[in-house]
Amino acid sequence: MRNIGITVSYDGTNFNGFQTQPYGRTVQDEIEKAILKLSGESIEIDASGRTDAGVHAVGQVFNFHTASTIPTERWAIALNTRLPKDIVILEAFDVPLSFHSRKSAKRKTYRYTIDTGKFPDVFGRQYRFHHPAKLDVGAMREGLGYLVGEHDFTSFTSIHSTKPHHVRTIYEAELVREGVFVHMYITGNGFLYNMVRIIMGTLLWVGQGKLAPEAMGTILAGRSRALAGPTAMPHGLTLMSVQYSSDS
Amino acid sequence: MRNIGITVSYDGTNFNGFQTQPYGRTVQDEIEKAILKLSGESIEIDASGRTDAGVHAVGQVFNFHTASTIPTERWAIALNTRLPKDIVILEAFDVPLSFHSRKSAKRKTYRYTIDTGKFPDVFGRQYRFHHPAKLDVGAMREGLGYLVGEHDFTSFTSIHSTKPHHVRTIYEAELVREGVFVHMYITGNGFLYNMVRIIMGTLLWVGQGKLAPEAMGTILAGRSRALAGPTAMPHGLTLMSVQYSSDS
Repeated sequence: MRNIGITVSYDGTNFNGFQTQPYGRTVQDEIEKAILKLSGESIEIDASGRTDAGVHAVGQVFNFHTASTIPTERWAIALNTRLPKDIVILEAFDVPLSFHSRKSAKRKTYRYTIDTGKFPDVFGRQYRFHHPAKLDVGAMREGLGYLVGEHDFTSFTSIHSTKPHHVRTIYEAELVREGVFVHMYITGNGFLYNMVRIIMGTLLWVGQGKLAPEAMGTILAGRSRALAGPTAMPHGLTLMSVQYSSDS
Repeated sequence: MRNIGITVSYDGTNFNGFQTQPYGRTVQDEIEKAILKLSGESIEIDASGRTDAGVHAVGQVFNFHTASTIPTERWAIALNTRLPKDIVILEAFDVPLSFHSRKSAKRKTYRYTIDTGKFPDVFGRQYRFHHPAKLDVGAMREGLGYLVGEHDFTSFTSIHSTKPHHVRTIYEAELVREGVFVHMYITGNGFLYNMVRIIMGTLLWVGQGKLAPEAMGTILAGRSRALAGPTAMPHGLTLMSVQYSSDS
């Protein structure tokens, strides 16, 4: 028995999220079906975390234990030929038997992208949230700064969060302008349910002058979901990478 | 009665081409339906040219005559609210009654994009042709140079071309590398059926060393479709812009 780690990208548009659900097409189901076709094994894979319906991944990571003798370097191409075109395996690598893609993860980076153009860029419409408002990116950047560090993120979590503790650490958070697009990149040791989307929904209020940048600090300190802004649409969100060594 | 010109972008993935067909969803049908909903007029629009199934447009142009009193600057937003999300009107402008988006066009620019990555970029899979071969872009660039100027492009046209004459002028043609992507931009006074795709299919042979760059000149001079390479997949092709003044 050995343990294989896989980096996978997917277009979340036509999935009901990563994780197996009673209804709807999921990334996990498609990957488990592809593994079954390839190795004949009925395996449950473990991902670094679920992503919601409509959310994308550039570099999601999962792992699974297998008795197969297929060489590790063959898994990526062999799975890709058995997967639908909206899932692309990027790399397969051997990991210790103790490795667990969720429990071993040290940091995750997400990106949320806003398209501020008058009309949406049709080619990125499924990967960017079209919000044709004039945004004060400087104010948003200042507001985002209040979230960096170790904090209780209850205000920026869905009331449906099932986690007992809401303290997480944001290591880095930045806003990058690229023409009419505004990207937020955010890296932390873990993210609560809807956390990145609620942060972006609240920052959009700051960008439009509905909230002062300092309000981000006040909302954080208030520890109540009711204080923060709306949950931004899922399709602007992409899981960029998962890091497993704390120095990366 | 007045004449309105429109610049429109569309994702060709889920269309059976631009032009109305007996079967399948077309861009023209969707736009004509949106005009009917907006102004109550059953109008046939004229585009700068058809695009095939799977081919995209950043800046296709069409025009139509209307008796509607809706101000020109309202047409873009008013049509967008009545169009499916894979068609986005970018601009509406008044044109002289004599303007015809096809007959008045002076130059068109197309882009064809190859994804040479080991595995496809999942987010651009519908806009780039995944061809994971090592390409000699310098040789392709040299080969492409043979096509610039006024030539008979019979070798680079489908045998199903219905045009009586195959002489066209290519004003500019260039290859641009962007990481693992290779873009061909090509500007001419008109393009024959499948012309850009056959040029790219043949250049891919040059890039892989199956043909010498000079062969592009020999194929051109031979005036026979049988001499050229395969027709590259439609989804890598995008109509970038249509120019109406000869100095633009």
